[in-house]
Amino acid sequence: MSQSTKQSEIVQTLYNAVKDHAILSPHGHTDPNWFSLDRPFSDPAELLVIPDHYVFRMLYSQGVAMEDLGIGVAAELRKPREIFRHLAKSWPLLLGTPSRMWLEYTFQNVFGITQNLSIETSDAIYDQIAAALASEAYRPRTLLRKFDIAVLATTDGALDPLHQHKAFAALGEQARLIPTFRPDTVLNPASPDFAAHVVQMGALTGENTALLAGYRAALASRRAYFKAHGATATDHDVPDFATELLADSAVQSLLDRALNGTISPQDAIRFYNHMLIEMAQMSVEDGLVMQIHAGNRRSTNAQVLARFGRDMGADIPHAADWVHGANALLNRVGNNPALHIIAFTLDESVYARELAPMAGHWPALRLGPPWWFHDSPLGIRRYFDSVVESAGYFNLAGFNDDTRALMSIPARHDMWRRAISTHLAEQVSAGKFAASDAHDLAQWLVVGAVRSAYKLGA
Amino acid sequence: MSQSTKQSEIVQTLYNAVKDHAILSPHGHTDPNWFSLDRPFSDPAELLVIPDHYVFRMLYSQGVAMEDLGIGVAAELRKPREIFRHLAKSWPLLLGTPSRMWLEYTFQNVFGITQNLSIETSDAIYDQIAAALASEAYRPRTLLRKFDIAVLATTDGALDPLHQHKAFAALGEQARLIPTFRPDTVLNPASPDFAAHVVQMGALTGENTALLAGYRAALASRRAYFKAHGATATDHDVPDFATELLADSAVQSLLDRALNGTISPQDAIRFYNHMLIEMAQMSVEDGLVMQIHAGNRRSTNAQVLARFGRDMGADIPHAADWVHGANALLNRVGNNPALHIIAFTLDESVYARELAPMAGHWPALRLGPPWWFHDSPLGIRRYFDSVVESAGYFNLAGFNDDTRALMSIPARHDMWRRAISTHLAEQVSAGKFAASDAHDLAQWLVVGAVRSAYKLGA
Amino acid sequence: MSQSTKQSEIVQTLYNAVKDHAILSPHGHTDPNWFSLDRPFSDPAELLVIPDHYVFRMLYSQGVAMEDLGIGVAAELRKPREIFRHLAKSWPLLLGTPSRMWLEYTFQNVFGITQNLSIETSDAIYDQIAAALASEAYRPRTLLRKFDIAVLATTDGALDPLHQHKAFAALGEQARLIPTFRPDTVLNPASPDFAAHVVQMGALTGENTALLAGYRAALASRRAYFKAHGATATDHDVPDFATELLADSAVQSLLDRALNGTISPQDAIRFYNHMLIEMAQMSVEDGLVMQIHAGNRRSTNAQVLARFGRDMGADIPHAADWVHGANALLNRVGNNPALHIIAFTLDESVYARELAPMAGHWPALRLGPPWWFHDSPLGIRRYFDSVVESAGYFNLAGFNDDTRALMSIPARHDMWRRAISTHLAEQVSAGKFAASDAHDLAQWLVVGAVRSAYKLGA
Repeated sequence: MSQSTKQSEIVQTLYNAVKDHAILSPHGHTDPNWFSLDRPFSDPAELLVIPDHYVFRMLYSQGVAMEDLGIGVAAELRKPREIFRHLAKSWPLLLGTPSRMWLEYTFQNVFGITQNLSIETSDAIYDQIAAALASEAYRPRTLLRKFDIAVLATTDGALDPLHQHKAFAALGEQARLIPTFRPDTVLNPASPDFAAHVVQMGALTGENTALLAGYRAALASRRAYFKAHGATATDHDVPDFATELLADSAVQSLLDRALNGTISPQDAIRFYNHMLIEMAQMSVEDGLVMQIHAGNRRSTNAQVLARFGRDMGADIPHAADWVHGANALLNRVGNNPALHIIAFTLDESVYARELAPMAGHWPALRLGPPWWFHDSPLGIRRYFDSVVESAGYFNLAGFNDDTRALMSIPARHDMWRRAISTHLAEQVSAGKFAASDAHDLAQWLVVGAVRSAYKLGA
Repeated sequence: MSQSTKQSEIVQTLYNAVKDHAILSPHGHTDPNWFSLDRPFSDPAELLVIPDHYVFRMLYSQGVAMEDLGIGVAAELRKPREIFRHLAKSWPLLLGTPSRMWLEYTFQNVFGITQNLSIETSDAIYDQIAAALASEAYRPRTLLRKFDIAVLATTDGALDPLHQHKAFAALGEQARLIPTFRPDTVLNPASPDFAAHVVQMGALTGENTALLAGYRAALASRRAYFKAHGATATDHDVPDFATELLADSAVQSLLDRALNGTISPQDAIRFYNHMLIEMAQMSVEDGLVMQIHAGNRRSTNAQVLARFGRDMGADIPHAADWVHGANALLNRVGNNPALHIIAFTLDESVYARELAPMAGHWPALRLGPPWWFHDSPLGIRRYFDSVVESAGYFNLAGFNDDTRALMSIPARHDMWRRAISTHLAEQVSAGKFAASDAHDLAQWLVVGAVRSAYKLGA
Repeated sequence: MSQSTKQSEIVQTLYNAVKDHAILSPHGHTDPNWFSLDRPFSDPAELLVIPDHYVFRMLYSQGVAMEDLGIGVAAELRKPREIFRHLAKSWPLLLGTPSRMWLEYTFQNVFGITQNLSIETSDAIYDQIAAALASEAYRPRTLLRKFDIAVLATTDGALDPLHQHKAFAALGEQARLIPTFRPDTVLNPASPDFAAHVVQMGALTGENTALLAGYRAALASRRAYFKAHGATATDHDVPDFATELLADSAVQSLLDRALNGTISPQDAIRFYNHMLIEMAQMSVEDGLVMQIHAGNRRSTNAQVLARFGRDMGADIPHAADWVHGANALLNRVGNNPALHIIAFTLDESVYARELAPMAGHWPALRLGPPWWFHDSPLGIRRYFDSVVESAGYFNLAGFNDDTRALMSIPARHDMWRRAISTHLAEQVSAGKFAASDAHDLAQWLVVGAVRSAYKLGA
C-alpha cells in the first residue's frame, strides 16, 4: 500500500470521527429575528445571492452590474429569478473559490439538488429551492435543528435590547442562540453615531456617560446585560490594531471632544486604542472573551460605498503589526490565563512571524481561525502550516464560520472538518505524532477548542 | 490505483491538452531588430550568457568575475568559448533555479543536445550551438515559426518610431510582433533623460509639451501611434507604487520644475504618481491595457552600477502596499470593466492579503502572473495557492514570459503549462472541482486569459 | 510503483546517505564549562526543562506557572521530579511542535526510553534519565563523542578570556570546541553594560577605548584573540537591522556620549548601525565570518522580564526590511567574495522577496538556515520553497542548531537531514534535477555548506 493511499485513509478515518458532531458557531452574523420569528425565507436570490458579498463581489469584478444582482434595488422591484439566472450564468467565475464550494454543498446537502448549476438548469433549481423555502421544513428554527447547531452566536450592537434572544430562549429549543457584545459604535469616535449612541447608552443604563466614571459604568452595565442574556464574548473591529494606555485625565479629555464632535481623527484613534485596553480589563472582571478582528480597511471603493453602502465587497486587508499593536494591552492583562483574547488577522505573514510566537507565550492569547478571504481549503492549510509549530494546537480557538448566510453554516464547518483531517493526516504521515494523537487533536479542533476558548461550558 | 497515481494522470492529461498551443507572449523584452533584420545570432555566449542577468547574477554571487562572463568587456574582446566554459564550470551553482531548467530545455529541445553540460562537454556543446546559429534554421524569424509564437510583444520607449515593427508587419509573417508603450522616461522626472525626452516628444507630435495640455496631447498622440502599430498595452515600472490625484495647476507647476531640472525627488515622485492616474484615464479613452510592474528597487549595488551599468542582477524587490498605493487610481477609474489594469508584484505577501481580494472586487483589475524571481515552479505554486480562492481564475491575466532571451520563451511557457496542470490536478484531487472544469481552466490559463486580459482578439 | 512510493524511496536513500555524518554545529549556545570541566548534569529537570524556553513558554502560555517549572526558583529549592511531572502532565500541549519531536528523539535515542511520556510514566522516565546522568556515559565530553560532534561553536562575550576553550583544546579531544565573537555589549550603547565593558575592553587590550582609534584597535585585538583560540565567526544580534556609514568625527562624538551615558536612544542605534559596517570591514581584514541575527524584539513581556529576567520566552519577531537595512553595509563590502556574511531572519516574508534575490547577487552574502521559531519541519520546508529558486543551494549556509540544549543537538541535526531529504526528493519527483544531483546537494547541505560558509576547513 503506497504512502499516499495510507494517508488518504487516515484523512477519511479522522473525518468520519468528527463529521457528525453538532455545530458550535461561536462567532457569526446571522439575524436573530430569523430564529425568534421563524418566518420563511422569501426567495432563492434573497437567501443566497443578495446578502452574500463573497459571491457578488466576484461577479462584480467581472463586469456584472450590482443592480443585476439585486444590490441597490428596492426589494419590491427585484426580480429574484433573473438574479438567480445571473448567478447561474456567472457560475464558472466562482470556480476555485470557497463560495462556490459552499453553494454546491448547500444545493446538494440542504436542498437535495442533483443537477449542476448552469443557465440551462437555473430555473429548475430556482424552483426547487423556492418550493423548499415555502415549506415548513425550511423555516429557520427547523434548519437550526436540521443543521444540528448546538450554539449559534450572533453579533449585536452594544445598545441592542436583545429581544430576539430573549424570545428564542423562551422557546425551549435545543440550540443556544447567544448574543455577542459589539461596542464599536460606543467605543470608536470615528463611528458616525458615536455621540448619539453614548448618550443613548447613558439613558439605557442610568449613567452619566459624559463623565468617564459613568461611561465606564455604562459599558460594564451593558456587558453585564449581554452576559445575562447568554453572551460569552465581545467582538472588536480594529482597522489598524494598536493599543496605548492613557491616564484618566487624558481619557476624559478625549471623551469630551469625542462627544462634542471636536476630536481629531488621530485622537479618535488614541481614544479607541486606549478603550480596547479597558475592554480587556473589563473582560478580566466579567469573564467575557475578547475577540479582536484586525487589519481590514473598510469600503475602499468610494463609488460603491456611495451607491450601495457598506459591506459591498470592497473591504480589503492591509499589513498588520501585532507585536507593537498588542504591546500595551498584553502588558496590562496578558499574563492572566483566565482572560481569553482571540486574535484574528487577514495578514497571513503575521502568523509565523508574530501571532504564533505570541500565542505560544502569552497566557491570555489564542488564535482565531483563518478569517474571511482565508476561510478556505488552501487558507486553512496555510494557517496550520504557519502556526502549529510555534503556537501548538492548544492555543487555537477552533473554527468560526463568521457568516451572515445561514445556509452556508454546515458547508463551512464541513470544510473545516475536512481540512483539519487532511492537515492532521499529513502530520501523521510525516511522523510528527501518532494517529491516536491526531484523533484527539481532531476532536479538540472541532469541539474542545471552541468550548474552551469561548467558555461555552462542557 | 492510488490517489497520487490518479493525480499524476490528471496532470498528464491536462498538460497534453495545452502543451501544443501556439505561444502568446503579451509582455517581454526581445529586440524587434532581430525579427525585422533576421540576422543570425552571433555565438552561444552572446545568445545565452551575456544578456541573461538571471544567469550571471548567480555566478557573480559565487565569486565568478563579471568580466569572465563577458560583462563590461567590449564585444570584440570577448572570448565566447571561454565565457561558455565559465558557465559549464559553474553549472551546479544553478541547480534548483528556473534558469537552469530553461537552459536545459533550450539545449535539448531547441538545439537537440543530448549531453549534460559540464566542463568536459562544454566545447562540444558550444560547437553544436555555434553551428546551429550559423545555419538558416536558427535565424530569428525561423525560430518564431519553429517556436509557434502567435503573438510577441516587445517593450518600447515612448519615442520609438517602431520602424522594426512596421518592417516586420510588411513581411506577412504569421506571428504578430506588437510594441508596448513604455513611457517611463517621459513620465517619471527621476529618469535622467526626462526633460530631453519630453522636448523630443513635443517635436515628434507637434505639441507644446511645456504646457500641460500639450504634454497630455503628446502622450495621447504617442499612445495612438503605438496603437496604430499594433500595441494593445502600456507598461509602467514603479519602484514604490503610490498614486495621488492632483489639480491641474499643481501638475503644471511640477511639470515646469521637472523640465527645468529644479524638481525635488519627492515632487518628482508626486508627479509620477499623478501621471499614472492620467495614464489610466487615457487607457479608458483609447482602450490600451495598463500594466503596472511595482515594487522593485533598481541597481542596489552602486559599484556594479558604476562599472557595468543597469540590469546587472542587483535589482531587489521590497515590501509593497497595494491597498494604499492603488487607492487614488482605482477610485478614479477602477469601476470600469472595459479598462484592464494588470498588476505585477514581487512581494508575495501582498497576494493573499491585498491583490487577490482587490482583483476579486475591482472590475478593472487583473493579476499578472508571478514575475521575475517568482517565475518558477514553486513560485507559480505559491501564486495559485495565494490568489485563486479570493480572485478566482477569471481575474488572472494568464502567463507572461517577460524575457529578453528569445531561446527561453518556449521553455518558460512550457514550465507554466506544466505548473498549471499540476496545480489544477491537485484541486481536482482535493475535490474542489471536476476534471472537466480543470480542462476548461487549463485552456483559459494558457490561451483565454491572455487574449482577454491583453485584448488580443480571438 | 506509484509516484509517491518512488518519492518516499528517494527520501530514504538520501537520508541514509547523510544520517551518519559527524555533526558540524557552527552556531549555538552551549556552555563551554560543561566540556572543560566534564561534570555530570545535575538532574532531568535541570537538563531538559528549566533552561529550555521553547518548552516552558508553551506551558506558560497554557497557564502553567513559571515557578512550577523551576523558573525563578533558587536551585536548592527546586523539586526536579515535580518539575518533570509538570512537563509530563502538559505533554500534549507540545503536540506538533519541534520541541516535542526533539525531546522524543532525546528520550529514545539518547536515553533509550521506550515508553511514551505521561503522568503515569513520568517518575519512571525521570528515574531512568537521572540514573543515566549519574553514570560516566552521560558526562558532557562523552556525549560529544557519542553524538559524533566534530565542531561545536559556542557564543561568547567580547571580553571572555576563553579559559574553557583553552582547557578543552589541551585535552586532545577529537571535537573542536570553538568560540564565537559576540560583541553586542561593547558595540551597542543600548546594552546596559556598554560603558563599563568598553572600559574593561580597553584595560584588557591596553588601548584607550575613549578614542575611536583605540576603540577600534581594541575590537580588532579581541577579534584576533578569539581567532587565535579557534573562532571562525562573529555574531550580532540586531533588533531592527539597519546600517549607516558615518564619518569618523560623528562616530567619535557618538562614542563620547555613549561612554558618558548621555547618548539618546536614536543615536545609540545610529552608532550600532555604523559599527556593524566596521565589523564587516574588520571581517574583510581578519577573515572572520559575520553572522547577523536580525528582527527579534527581546523581552516583550515586562512582568516576565521583571520577575524572571531575559530569555524567558517573550522574544517575538517583527517585520524586517533587508533591502534598505543592509544597503550601506553591502555597498561597502558586499562585492568581496572572500567575506562571508550570513543572514538570519525571523520574518519569512523577506525570504522570497529580499534575501534570496540578494544572496543570488552579492558575493559576500549567504543565507542562514531557518532559525528559532522556524527551525522545524514545516519551517524548513517553507524556507527551501522560498529561497532555492532565487538563491540556489550554494548561497546557503547549511544548518545551525543554535541551541543551549546539548541533548537536542543530534535531534535537531537529524530533523534537518530528514527535511532536506524530503525537500530534495520532491524536487527530483518534480523533474527539477536528477537523483544524482540530489545526492550531491544533500552532502552539500549537511557538510559542505557549513564548512564553506563558516570557513571550517575541509
